[in-house]
Amino acid sequence: MRIIRSIKVMQDYSGAEKNKGKKIGFVPTMGALHQGHLSLIRQARKENDLVVVSIFVNPTQFGPKEDFKKYPRNLQKDALLCKKNGVDIIFSPSSKQMYPSGYKTYVNVQDLSCGLCARSRPGHFQGVTTVVTKLFNIVSPTNAYFGHKDAQQAAIINRMALDLNLPVKVRVSPTIREKDGLAFSSRNLYLSQQERKEAVVLSESLKLARELIKAGEKKSAVIVAAMRKLITAGRSAKIDYICIVDAKTLKPVPAIPGKCLIALAVWIGKTRLIDNLVVSRKF
Amino acid sequence: MRIIRSIKVMQDYSGAEKNKGKKIGFVPTMGALHQGHLSLIRQARKENDLVVVSIFVNPTQFGPKEDFKKYPRNLQKDALLCKKNGVDIIFSPSSKQMYPSGYKTYVNVQDLSCGLCARSRPGHFQGVTTVVTKLFNIVSPTNAYFGHKDAQQAAIINRMALDLNLPVKVRVSPTIREKDGLAFSSRNLYLSQQERKEAVVLSESLKLARELIKAGEKKSAVIVAAMRKLITAGRSAKIDYICIVDAKTLKPVPAIPGKCLIALAVWIGKTRLIDNLVVSRKF
Repeated sequence: MRIIRSIKVMQDYSGAEKNKGKKIGFVPTMGALHQGHLSLIRQARKENDLVVVSIFVNPTQFGPKEDFKKYPRNLQKDALLCKKNGVDIIFSPSSKQMYPSGYKTYVNVQDLSCGLCARSRPGHFQGVTTVVTKLFNIVSPTNAYFGHKDAQQAAIINRMALDLNLPVKVRVSPTIREKDGLAFSSRNLYLSQQERKEAVVLSESLKLARELIKAGEKKSAVIVAAMRKLITAGRSAKIDYICIVDAKTLKPVPAIPGKCLIALAVWIGKTRLIDNLVVSRKF
Repeated sequence: MRIIRSIKVMQDYSGAEKNKGKKIGFVPTMGALHQGHLSLIRQARKENDLVVVSIFVNPTQFGPKEDFKKYPRNLQKDALLCKKNGVDIIFSPSSKQMYPSGYKTYVNVQDLSCGLCARSRPGHFQGVTTVVTKLFNIVSPTNAYFGHKDAQQAAIINRMALDLNLPVKVRVSPTIREKDGLAFSSRNLYLSQQERKEAVVLSESLKLARELIKAGEKKSAVIVAAMRKLITAGRSAKIDYICIVDAKTLKPVPAIPGKCLIALAVWIGKTRLIDNLVVSRKF
């Protein structure tokens, strides 16, 4: 396994491999790798000749008051996990290289980048779509892998790839969870032991929603109210949003249609966690 | 020479040629080809294995009251010119293919897309950068050729290619002019005989500016005033803007620095024409 720091070296390397007819599988990450990332890496390993993982804590997707500075960074540990899971290249550029002085270009996906997480994280998705476009142009992947835990991000990147005719297949894989149901996330590292226990309420509330729908409940408002009640019964949970939206357009739906996305963001102490579930009336 | 209408066919074709190690030269156009385009095509022919010319009147770069509908379209004539000049592929997709229902993604270059032409054409450069990103992703060019007549466009596309790490070399070539100095433009077709004569005032005013600078004038305001006087002496000319800006940042400069761009847009009757000149104190 090789660690590449330079954009030019990475671009030349992947361009040359692509020219040899090699399939490149790409997993973009911000490091602090967990089981969710590893499942994407293993899928990429199966479906491609080469696997590239980028590790880059992208400053443009953090708000000024967010956790950019304290976001967990541990390249040594990440590199070990990558090596164990068959990664060929870690691409880990500096911020200065990615956003040099005079940088001015941003990619925007309209509508989908409003609502849900965008309400409390303005500019976040512009940062994501911009860095993903850059990384795609540098790594030239055949397939790129994203987790469904960031459902809004996945929908936005799918739309962007389609709209900009990016010659990349975007693959979205199911959320990977701990035994008790908590979705794997790099931000789980922030949680105290007590908070870790309480964080299970995100997935519990989604399970509750699924049960209610299974039992015939159709009104979004009723389902959200029940989720809200369950979550706020805990000691340190504070709801950012709970939304039931169309799985493709991400527009709120007042009644459960054939297929919808239930998404939520909850503060557990000082840590903001997200989770979601796709449900349809038929299970 | 082959005319390709389908995005998928074009993308597969250029992907396959790129994999064979072929250099692709790309000249994006809106058709109504003139000597300016042909000079870019001939340069592309010299420097690449394959030459692709796109002909696509891009709706997203026209304002609602602009000339999208009446913009000259003559694929047959353009195809003949392309064939004569050694073009291999004309790529001419439909608007529906380029902007399908549900389209939502736009590329923006901040700051450079304000001022100059952006003042009277809001949204124009977002349309340009978006379509150029799309075309680059479809055609996978090694080199892409633009004319310096659209100096602001060239500066913006250069910045965008750099910022987004597009694996394309952007080449900007000098403006090609008629014998009397008028810059070639597809929009010259709109001019009546009388207007065509008066249109020479754009390049005349730039020559005047150069003479003034040569003679030692340093104040932008004095130069612009002289240009303004010359242009408005004509019968049908109406100034949109005259600006003296830094050639890279496109920021207005009160005094002539080492190197600057004098750019102007002038209405001749109902036709808006642009022109520019790069000057420095040393000639």
